[in-house]
Amino acid sequence: MPKVRIGIDMMGGDYAPSEAVKGLALYLNDDTIETLIYCIGSETEMVPLLQSHGIQYDERIEIVHAPEIIGYNEHPTKALREKQKSSIAIGFHLLSTGKIDAFVSAGNTGAMLVGAMYSIKTVDGVLRPTIPTLVPKLNGNTGLLLDVGMNADCKPEHLNQFAILGSQYAESVLDIENPRVGLLNVGEEAEKGNLLCQATYPLLKENKQINFIGNIEGRDLFKDKADVVVCDGFTGNIVLKMAESIYEIAAHRHLEDDEYLHRFHYENYGGTPILGIAKPVIIGHGISNDKAFKNMLIQAMQMAESDFCGKVKTDFA
Amino acid sequence: MPKVRIGIDMMGGDYAPSEAVKGLALYLNDDTIETLIYCIGSETEMVPLLQSHGIQYDERIEIVHAPEIIGYNEHPTKALREKQKSSIAIGFHLLSTGKIDAFVSAGNTGAMLVGAMYSIKTVDGVLRPTIPTLVPKLNGNTGLLLDVGMNADCKPEHLNQFAILGSQYAESVLDIENPRVGLLNVGEEAEKGNLLCQATYPLLKENKQINFIGNIEGRDLFKDKADVVVCDGFTGNIVLKMAESIYEIAAHRHLEDDEYLHRFHYENYGGTPILGIAKPVIIGHGISNDKAFKNMLIQAMQMAESDFCGKVKTDFA
Repeated sequence: MPKVRIGIDMMGGDYAPSEAVKGLALYLNDDTIETLIYCIGSETEMVPLLQSHGIQYDERIEIVHAPEIIGYNEHPTKALREKQKSSIAIGFHLLSTGKIDAFVSAGNTGAMLVGAMYSIKTVDGVLRPTIPTLVPKLNGNTGLLLDVGMNADCKPEHLNQFAILGSQYAESVLDIENPRVGLLNVGEEAEKGNLLCQATYPLLKENKQINFIGNIEGRDLFKDKADVVVCDGFTGNIVLKMAESIYEIAAHRHLEDDEYLHRFHYENYGGTPILGIAKPVIIGHGISNDKAFKNMLIQAMQMAESDFCGKVKTDFA
Repeated sequence: MPKVRIGIDMMGGDYAPSEAVKGLALYLNDDTIETLIYCIGSETEMVPLLQSHGIQYDERIEIVHAPEIIGYNEHPTKALREKQKSSIAIGFHLLSTGKIDAFVSAGNTGAMLVGAMYSIKTVDGVLRPTIPTLVPKLNGNTGLLLDVGMNADCKPEHLNQFAILGSQYAESVLDIENPRVGLLNVGEEAEKGNLLCQATYPLLKENKQINFIGNIEGRDLFKDKADVVVCDGFTGNIVLKMAESIYEIAAHRHLEDDEYLHRFHYENYGGTPILGIAKPVIIGHGISNDKAFKNMLIQAMQMAESDFCGKVKTDFA
């Protein structure tokens, strides 16, 4: 298998480029890693930092100079069009032309979404790309919840597709065999829920591509009842942010060292992949620290090495 | 002020009548309480228990014999019609005829809802009665979230009314002056959200009966940004059950003694009032223990003494 090539936007995130550099150093600490990392950003800013963190210009590193930066408050479409030499624009250019196999950034989220949708494009047959979040289970396992915000209003066929995309991610990236799919709902019985859930349930039940096990209630999210839970992006975003606040609560109560509660810290998950587009793209939190960057790189590597996007193309063929 | 009279279904809940009796004993421990409690249930089962818990037949207790019980699995409408001598049917009869001022039960939830809607009725002008949940804030305060499950699909005018009902409850029962109202949403900006939120935001903003402060994200629910947060009953129910699971997580991690995390234990809130109907009705968890029963009685007392329902009638007049 040829070496996987990952592009990382060194200028994205509130603490760029230093946390990106530190995260890259953590990632490269693992000598068994065989990826080639394209560091995209301002050469004059990156190079001294890379050197000071002991990152060698060896066979695992390429430098790609990007003299421009897209700021947090810039209009995504306008910025991408006007700043062709920004780290995000160059990253998407490298990805769309096949120079790299995955792209990660903690920069302007809107620009990342626009770039993903317009320069990478949706897999044929996918109605709506979606973003998932990982869910820490009390028994130590990890599940997936989607959509968590890309699609505030959904139709039943969207949720049905999220189930396929989430199952593929769980299988390819999380190594979960025949992942159990649940529908986030207000009760266990098939006829429960709002109109969306009532119409989605039969679609999931009839879908032979997934292993549907029924409804999952809010109280069951952290139990290991289902591996993949689907919902509309409005509900999912509320749940995601509530889950993130569990770590904040823990920290406020000085309980953040609890092994389980610590798993709600965003840094453990790195970033959010966009599922349903043709190549791996991972978007990080603006506040990403070194550990978050390291985990984004690992996630990108796993998505590329498992050929997640290729498998999605087959699923929707 | 004449003594408030509260009816309690002694036969409701998984541990009836013993937890109801113990809860009543806890409630009566407070000598300053001046309510008159109507104990509705099987006389032969209740009386020895009341005596063994030292509950005197004094000016604070009345016994109302109810020879029948509506079970958990019974069809609500059918059971209410056929079992006129059940504790729930008698409770609603006493309430609708003005013999008592409030009714609490941890029995068959469906029968409680049907009784509330058909024998007590909705306040004129209220489109949809709603059930709220109390939300423990990190700073020690308590807020309200509604609807949490009675109305899975909502229209903007429903959420606008929930804001009025929730504000009145926060003011009358929780003693919060000029309560701040938030709309549960996926972002802070006015134009954010699903179609429901986008259409609800301007209604809330123009509503002069409430103190609308804008959108509230999932991460802000436990912060003290708003006193009353409104959402559709689907989203609210997912949030409620997730919040309840925070206590379960705490218990699983042996952190349930944490002062804040313990506030997520359902027993602290007693039961759920139905807002928008003409008289105070409180529905308890099937698993209600003594502390939950005590808190349900306190809640009923506060709703009746503050004339919450009378104020709602004025709000919607």
